[in-house]
Amino acid sequence: MIAVLKNGTTPEQRDSLCKWFESMGLSCHVSQGEFHTIIGLIGDVSKVDIEMLESLSIVERVTRISDPFKKANRKFHEEPTVVDVSGVKIGGGHFQIIAGPCSVESREQIIAVAKAVKASGATMLRGGAFKPRTSPYAFQGLHGEGIGLLLEAKKETGLPLVSEIMNINDLDLFAEVDVLQVGARNMQNFDLLKELGHCRKPILLKRGLANTLKELLMSAEYIMAGGNGNVILCERGIRTFETYTRNTLDLSAVPVLHELTHLPVIIDPSHSTGYSRYVAPMSYAAAAAGADGLIIEVHNDPAHALCDGAQSLTPGQFDEVARKVRRVREALA
Amino acid sequence: MIAVLKNGTTPEQRDSLCKWFESMGLSCHVSQGEFHTIIGLIGDVSKVDIEMLESLSIVERVTRISDPFKKANRKFHEEPTVVDVSGVKIGGGHFQIIAGPCSVESREQIIAVAKAVKASGATMLRGGAFKPRTSPYAFQGLHGEGIGLLLEAKKETGLPLVSEIMNINDLDLFAEVDVLQVGARNMQNFDLLKELGHCRKPILLKRGLANTLKELLMSAEYIMAGGNGNVILCERGIRTFETYTRNTLDLSAVPVLHELTHLPVIIDPSHSTGYSRYVAPMSYAAAAAGADGLIIEVHNDPAHALCDGAQSLTPGQFDEVARKVRRVREALA
Amino acid sequence: MIAVLKNGTTPEQRDSLCKWFESMGLSCHVSQGEFHTIIGLIGDVSKVDIEMLESLSIVERVTRISDPFKKANRKFHEEPTVVDVSGVKIGGGHFQIIAGPCSVESREQIIAVAKAVKASGATMLRGGAFKPRTSPYAFQGLHGEGIGLLLEAKKETGLPLVSEIMNINDLDLFAEVDVLQVGARNMQNFDLLKELGHCRKPILLKRGLANTLKELLMSAEYIMAGGNGNVILCERGIRTFETYTRNTLDLSAVPVLHELTHLPVIIDPSHSTGYSRYVAPMSYAAAAAGADGLIIEVHNDPAHALCDGAQSLTPGQFDEVARKVRRVREALA
Amino acid sequence: MIAVLKNGTTPEQRDSLCKWFESMGLSCHVSQGEFHTIIGLIGDVSKVDIEMLESLSIVERVTRISDPFKKANRKFHEEPTVVDVSGVKIGGGHFQIIAGPCSVESREQIIAVAKAVKASGATMLRGGAFKPRTSPYAFQGLHGEGIGLLLEAKKETGLPLVSEIMNINDLDLFAEVDVLQVGARNMQNFDLLKELGHCRKPILLKRGLANTLKELLMSAEYIMAGGNGNVILCERGIRTFETYTRNTLDLSAVPVLHELTHLPVIIDPSHSTGYSRYVAPMSYAAAAAGADGLIIEVHNDPAHALCDGAQSLTPGQFDEVARKVRRVREALA
Repeated sequence: MIAVLKNGTTPEQRDSLCKWFESMGLSCHVSQGEFHTIIGLIGDVSKVDIEMLESLSIVERVTRISDPFKKANRKFHEEPTVVDVSGVKIGGGHFQIIAGPCSVESREQIIAVAKAVKASGATMLRGGAFKPRTSPYAFQGLHGEGIGLLLEAKKETGLPLVSEIMNINDLDLFAEVDVLQVGARNMQNFDLLKELGHCRKPILLKRGLANTLKELLMSAEYIMAGGNGNVILCERGIRTFETYTRNTLDLSAVPVLHELTHLPVIIDPSHSTGYSRYVAPMSYAAAAAGADGLIIEVHNDPAHALCDGAQSLTPGQFDEVARKVRRVREALA
Repeated sequence: MIAVLKNGTTPEQRDSLCKWFESMGLSCHVSQGEFHTIIGLIGDVSKVDIEMLESLSIVERVTRISDPFKKANRKFHEEPTVVDVSGVKIGGGHFQIIAGPCSVESREQIIAVAKAVKASGATMLRGGAFKPRTSPYAFQGLHGEGIGLLLEAKKETGLPLVSEIMNINDLDLFAEVDVLQVGARNMQNFDLLKELGHCRKPILLKRGLANTLKELLMSAEYIMAGGNGNVILCERGIRTFETYTRNTLDLSAVPVLHELTHLPVIIDPSHSTGYSRYVAPMSYAAAAAGADGLIIEVHNDPAHALCDGAQSLTPGQFDEVARKVRRVREALA
Repeated sequence: MIAVLKNGTTPEQRDSLCKWFESMGLSCHVSQGEFHTIIGLIGDVSKVDIEMLESLSIVERVTRISDPFKKANRKFHEEPTVVDVSGVKIGGGHFQIIAGPCSVESREQIIAVAKAVKASGATMLRGGAFKPRTSPYAFQGLHGEGIGLLLEAKKETGLPLVSEIMNINDLDLFAEVDVLQVGARNMQNFDLLKELGHCRKPILLKRGLANTLKELLMSAEYIMAGGNGNVILCERGIRTFETYTRNTLDLSAVPVLHELTHLPVIIDPSHSTGYSRYVAPMSYAAAAAGADGLIIEVHNDPAHALCDGAQSLTPGQFDEVARKVRRVREALA
Repeated sequence: MIAVLKNGTTPEQRDSLCKWFESMGLSCHVSQGEFHTIIGLIGDVSKVDIEMLESLSIVERVTRISDPFKKANRKFHEEPTVVDVSGVKIGGGHFQIIAGPCSVESREQIIAVAKAVKASGATMLRGGAFKPRTSPYAFQGLHGEGIGLLLEAKKETGLPLVSEIMNINDLDLFAEVDVLQVGARNMQNFDLLKELGHCRKPILLKRGLANTLKELLMSAEYIMAGGNGNVILCERGIRTFETYTRNTLDLSAVPVLHELTHLPVIIDPSHSTGYSRYVAPMSYAAAAAGADGLIIEVHNDPAHALCDGAQSLTPGQFDEVARKVRRVREALA
């Protein structure tokens, strides 16, 4: 970390600042220029609050040279992390498609969808039992009953399960769920992240609607700092001014994250665009950009289940998407 | 709610849609135009998922006429809500200044700040014991010990306390805290909101960094739906592309929220701007815009407490701000 | 267009509003509900200012059923437009890669790059002679001399030219340039758009940094309303809060625009990401998403031309990108 | 400017970079640390393209210590600039209200509004003759005829005129207009800015919808670099995700700009909020935040002129706003 002091800073002020840095266990390398003094900080600067430092009256600019995330950082862990989900590997060349309905609605629904997506090549089953909804009056999920139905579908198909956890007090209910999903709205629910750091289950961490990639990595760091290195990152659209799509899928996140971190990165084309007709092109694009996987909403009958069709593919549409995704990956192999 | 159907929709499709609406307890008023069919929905449309409806292949546009929030809605509750915080009233013409340090650090600090801000006219004391931090390696607050110190400061000064709760499992620790603050990052932690709906304590609900005012009101609705009507809304800056300030203070939120809801609305000029030198002008602006209060960070010695000075006023600066805020309010009375 | 009137609107107010609509040549279809009055407007509503209408005290909501753009609208022109650039077709299945340096620097540079990109499969040459720069002190381009050098490169290679025009007074200089580019900062320079509507040359219209797709189409409409239907749309990244990339490439714009308009849509992976190492994955993604072309910065020696390397590929890198783009397109054909 | 080189950079690479800097007339101060090499650049760094520099493979981070704007920079010009508009001073303690209709519609209208706003304390008259409209089919202004009507209103009332120029070819028409306004959409129309730098008339420069304050100052720098120092800056709302207001008024821009530049800063509460009912509170807030002036839309009969009422005050409403703005300023004097 480098702090540039303002023109006019006295040697006493400079020394006082250096003493404070040294009290934090850092060593200072002072470079006195004609107009500015530059202090290079050596040591563990992860505890330095850069915003607070920048606001000191004698400080002109602060530049962080090293990233604030460590365990998630590719610089210290060059090999890509391969997360093992009950035998299904993701990351480091292993590409997986997670598919299933937004919410678990009934035994028939979840088992039918599970069988269909498995037949088309999906290797994990998603399904929400706890649903974060903007309105307190909207359907909030089947909760424990939904988890039970997911487990039946797992038994039938052998597909590992991915389901969202919103409250750490529900953890026991997820004992047989294979991947715990942290939703976008909980990406900075730090208490939840800390607790998940004590699990050994893989965590699917979704980027918040208005969170930077650095913040996403810092949230992964919360989980990893607790001892759980099995984190899968997921880009699912960010909030912008554009309204034709529900959110704006930031697909550049794939190469950027692959450069910054060794963790696997997957794309959610369903929530990001909000409309099923954009899911296919964005799935092909995600595969072409080098994503390690996709998480796609599929419903067995979105046409009749009027209230669930917005962003879900039919099993038939999903089959085509999965097939073409494979072709894109082969073309770039 | 109005649904406009696409040109080419068959009468069968239209009737099928109406039947579905009717199965949800709504009645339909169909208006058949030359090019479009318009369905007006009457009844409790709060359960209708507008995004899902819009995605149906036969639907061109959906317009919500009534707001999705009810208990927070000024249309159904014209009188402004006056929240009583242990005898201190806020809202409906009652203006209050909440002041105190970002984090509780020590007995000396919190008591000195509490006395100083009280002398300058603050009527509630803020102080964080649980701090949401982007980095797992940053200081996370004194937790229970911090709450204890806040209670001592309350005893000394009589000021009611405002402090942030991040985890519902900590609720017992907050038994004597007067206002529970929900931070920006937890604005859509729906499980937390639901639990706070079962309290009777006033809740200070901060707008999320990338949340619309409608979403803020929906989160208030979560608390109110549980039976707790004592919600104070707080604008604290939104995330934009501008970087000279930490966030962008959306001060228009004051008149907009006063129009939409009966709940009190306060402004946080410290977190929104991120720099103490902008706190004074934004405090005057907030008072002039008609806010019901301010929440301001004050530290007794930001100069020496090097790592906490960024956005905190000194007690002397706070005294001037409080005085001028009163003058602005008098000028507009 | 549908206007919903507020509860409590008098019949006189409603009739007065209808008369005003009728004075604009529209006919009104009034549907009187129990709580709300709905006015359906039939006719050419493109002149109605929706924001102004919404602000009337008796109006609750306004919903535009038809799009404000017509000539660019796919509803009225189902077949994709194929733009003919001096014999090179783009759109409607014809995919083209435009390549070349950010700025024209010298005869050697532009001819070497032109030959190299042609050999790798580029079918048009880009090169800036007039450069919009944030700072008045930065290099502004070689102007007329740059155009002259581009024309030499065209003569050598036969590649049609794409170059940015910033000022309509420069139009004569562009007489032999094949495609006139309107840069992102000029997307709403309406006087420039109007004048380009009187040309017959193809126009490459870049989306503004903070413009919606609807606004992009309205700007295309300005050109088309003047009689020039040869418009190629280009997504080049939008401004968001994310900073690891220069802008955020909104790749969903490809399927959305293909749905809304018949005009060709190309992607600029160089300016959107800002870093050459992200150009390859975003080029593959763009091809997979169904774009009609790419515009890519290539420099013959970015390593030595230190100050031009940020987002430019070397000819060797470009060759690989062009090859793999073809493979992605074949995989999805 | 400081460039931090990556760990592993060879001395040859470092020296090659330094030579390149020196070829630009800069001198380099190299500080070799254990892990990183830091190069401090001394001299005129305004020509260095920071993004390009950052993209070099050996460069880790670049930090600009000095601002890229000079003539607009308060560091080099401490005294606030007072712009003299035909005898009416603005800036440096001189506060002015510019008022008038969005568009000039007729002689009766503009003269009635001019008289009314003058009586209420406005000191300049605004009125658009050239209107930038999103749609080519919308009313584009009365052009030369509108300018003529404005001049009549100036004759009647003595109020200096503020009107928007969109095209440098129209400059002759504005010979007797006192202040030339550059609209938000033209803030980076650099050719227009350059030409206005050759005028001696005051320029009212509006911030673009998605432009940072730094970019606003760089655009002011374009005008000032041409020799015209009479620039008035105007914040008029930025584009965010919030939709209850047309744009989000960034009022913190007032203290931030006053710190960065000596130029006067005014606020447009009409365009930023988009609704007349929010103009009053935002005007008071702007005055309280320390703005040097306001630009407010006033129409003599927004109720009957159905299509122009959205954001315009009536003369009666304006009178109250102007009166209370004065009271706020007195309270903070």
